[in-house]
Amino acid sequence: MRTAISERLGIEFPLFAFSHCRDVVAAVTNAGGFGVLGAIAYTPEQLDVELTWIDEQVGGRPYGVDVLVPGKVDAAALGGVRVAELIPERHRDFVTHLMAKYGVGGPGQQPVGAAADEFARRVSAAGATGLIDVALKHPIGLIASALGPPPPEMVARAREAGVPVAALVGTVEHARRQVAAGADVIVAQGTEAGGHTGEISTLVLTPQVVDAVAPVPVLAAGGIASGRQMAAAMALGAQGVWCGSVWLTTEEAETPQAVKRKFLAASSLDTVRSRSRTGKPARQLATAWTEEWDHGQESPGPLGMPLQMLVAEHAMARITAAAERGEPGALELAGYFVGQVVGQLNQVKPAREVVYEMISEFGEALDRLNRLAE
Amino acid sequence: MRTAISERLGIEFPLFAFSHCRDVVAAVTNAGGFGVLGAIAYTPEQLDVELTWIDEQVGGRPYGVDVLVPGKVDAAALGGVRVAELIPERHRDFVTHLMAKYGVGGPGQQPVGAAADEFARRVSAAGATGLIDVALKHPIGLIASALGPPPPEMVARAREAGVPVAALVGTVEHARRQVAAGADVIVAQGTEAGGHTGEISTLVLTPQVVDAVAPVPVLAAGGIASGRQMAAAMALGAQGVWCGSVWLTTEEAETPQAVKRKFLAASSLDTVRSRSRTGKPARQLATAWTEEWDHGQESPGPLGMPLQMLVAEHAMARITAAAERGEPGALELAGYFVGQVVGQLNQVKPAREVVYEMISEFGEALDRLNRLAE
Repeated sequence: MRTAISERLGIEFPLFAFSHCRDVVAAVTNAGGFGVLGAIAYTPEQLDVELTWIDEQVGGRPYGVDVLVPGKVDAAALGGVRVAELIPERHRDFVTHLMAKYGVGGPGQQPVGAAADEFARRVSAAGATGLIDVALKHPIGLIASALGPPPPEMVARAREAGVPVAALVGTVEHARRQVAAGADVIVAQGTEAGGHTGEISTLVLTPQVVDAVAPVPVLAAGGIASGRQMAAAMALGAQGVWCGSVWLTTEEAETPQAVKRKFLAASSLDTVRSRSRTGKPARQLATAWTEEWDHGQESPGPLGMPLQMLVAEHAMARITAAAERGEPGALELAGYFVGQVVGQLNQVKPAREVVYEMISEFGEALDRLNRLAE
Repeated sequence: MRTAISERLGIEFPLFAFSHCRDVVAAVTNAGGFGVLGAIAYTPEQLDVELTWIDEQVGGRPYGVDVLVPGKVDAAALGGVRVAELIPERHRDFVTHLMAKYGVGGPGQQPVGAAADEFARRVSAAGATGLIDVALKHPIGLIASALGPPPPEMVARAREAGVPVAALVGTVEHARRQVAAGADVIVAQGTEAGGHTGEISTLVLTPQVVDAVAPVPVLAAGGIASGRQMAAAMALGAQGVWCGSVWLTTEEAETPQAVKRKFLAASSLDTVRSRSRTGKPARQLATAWTEEWDHGQESPGPLGMPLQMLVAEHAMARITAAAERGEPGALELAGYFVGQVVGQLNQVKPAREVVYEMISEFGEALDRLNRLAE
C-alpha cells in the first residue's frame, strides 16, 4: 500500500507501532510496518543498547524513536531543587494509606527521592536532549515527540540528520502549532487512545487535522487495532495509522502478566481518562488506583506532571511486583495506559501476526466497500 | 449504493437523518436518504399533522419516526402524582437564581406544573404508545426507539404492520439486549454523538456491535457529518449511517437562530456530556447552563429523568426566547444537543445539498482508498 509517507519511509504498510518493547518494534518493522520505540524509560546509555539490538534485528528496515518532551512541565520542579522534596506530605501519606488499605506487601522501597531526580531529568526537555543525541546516532527513520511542540533544537538536529519529526496532537489548534514548530508528520490522536489524550474522537479529529495541515501527512491514532479500523482511519484522509494498545497483549510485549490478564478480560467500558498516573489526563485501565485518586474521599487529588508521575511510578513498581505474586489488593490497584480498543484484545498473539491480520482485514474492508458502491 | 438495509427500505443511499424538523426529514428522503422524525416534542394529534405533511411531500419515498422510550424512568415520577410536585424547592430556586444572575428577562412564565404533566406523559412508555399508534397509521418505513429496549408492545405492533424497529445503543451489551427484545436494526452510537450517549467512541464501538449482533444490520452514529466519515463508518462494517447534528445548521432546521449561530462558531472542543438537560448524560453545546449545573458552587446537581428534562426545557423555552431577542446573559445560557462534529458545521446549507455532498465525498474517499491499495 502506497501513501506519501510509506514511500518516504520506505515501508510496505503504513502501520506504525508505538511500543516500549524493542521486540515489538523489531517484529513490526520486520513484518512490513514501522516500529517506534518509546524511549522515556531509558537513560541515554540504555537507549543506545536497545537501538543497537534493534539495528541488528531489522537488517536496515526502518524504525523510529519516540521521546516524551512535555511542553508545560512546572519549571520550578526542575530548577535545581531535588524533585522529591516537592512532593507534599499528604500525597506521600495517601500512597502509604493506599498500600495499607489494599495490603500491598513486599520489600520496603527505597525512598521516593532516590530515583526521583534521574526520573524527572528524563522527562524534562534537557533530559530528552540526551536521548535525541543517542537516537540520531542510529539509522532511525523518524523521531517523534509525544507531548507539546518539538523543541527547536530537536527539530534542528533531526533536520540536519535528515530524519523527519512526528508530533502527536489532540486538537486542530495543536496540529497547526506543531507544524509551525517544524513537525513533518502529524499524529492526530483521538480521545479513545491510551496514554495522554484529549477529548475529541478520532473520527471527528482526523479529517479536521488533515484539512488544517495539508499537505503535511497525518497519521490517525486512537481506536485502531484492526484492519477495519485502519481502513476507516484512511477513509478519513489519514496516510497511515499509529497504534499502541494493540501491542500490549502480544507475545513480545513486556506488559506484566497480571496487567496483561486484566487487559484480556477488560471491555471497552473499562478505561478512564485520569490524572492519577502522570498528572495530565491519560487514558488507562480503570483500577482501584484511578478510582481512589479521582474519587476517593481521602484523596488529596493528583499533582501536576512530572510530580504525579514520580509518585505513581514509584508506587506502581511495588504494586506490580505484588500483583505478579498474586496479592489480591495489588491486583485491584495494578493497571497501565491503554485505549478503548482494550475490549477487542482477547487473545495473546505474536506482533507479526497482528500486522498480517490487519493487512488482511484492511483488504477485506476495502473489498466490501467496493461491493457496496457497485 | 446497496446494503441489505438500503435494499430493504428501498433507498438509494443509506444515510439516515434524525431530525425534529419535518422539512429536514422530507428533504433528506427526497434526496435519496432516509429521514427520521423525532416525535418526542409532539402530542399524538400534532404528530399526525406532521406525518400527513411529510406524506404529501415525499411521494411515497420512505421515511421513519423516532420515539423516546426511556427504559428507566423513575416509576414514582409517573405514578399518578402531579410530576411538578416532585421537583424539589432548591432546584426551582437554582433556576430562579440562574435567571437572575444572567439577567434573563421576558414575560413571566406559566408555573412549571402547568405543562409538566403532559410533558412527562409523553416521555413515559404509555405516552410513547399514543405516538406509536399514530405513526403506524402512516406509511412509515422504520420506527426507532432512542432509549432503552423497545417495549414488547411496540415491537408487536410494528411487526404486525411490517415495519422494522431500530434501537440506539452505546455498548455491545445493550446491542445484544435490544436484539433479544426484537430490534431489527441496531444504531451503534459513539460518545462523540449529540444527545444521550455512552462513553465508547464510534470507531471502537461499531465493529464490536457489528460482530456481536450479526446478521442484524448496524448503522453507525456519532462523529459522522461528511462523506469521509460515512466511508469510515462503513469500512467498520456499518450498513449505513445515522446523523443528527449535521442537520441542525441546515436551512430547513428550526434551530433557534441564536443557537444556530453558536453552532456555526463552535469548535469540536465546545461540547460536553452533561446531565443538566435531561437527567441522563447527553452531549450538547457547552454553555453557562451546563457549567452552572455541573460545576457551579450553588448547584444542587441535576435531577434524574424526566424531572431534570422538565426543569431544563421549561427554563430553556424562556432562555431561548430571550437569546433570540439578543439578551447577552441568555445567549450565554442558550444551547442544544449537538455532537463533536459541531466543529465541522461552519455554513448554513440546504439539507439536500448536505446529502449530495456526502454522497460525492463518499465516492472520493473510496477512490482514494483504492488508489492507495493499488
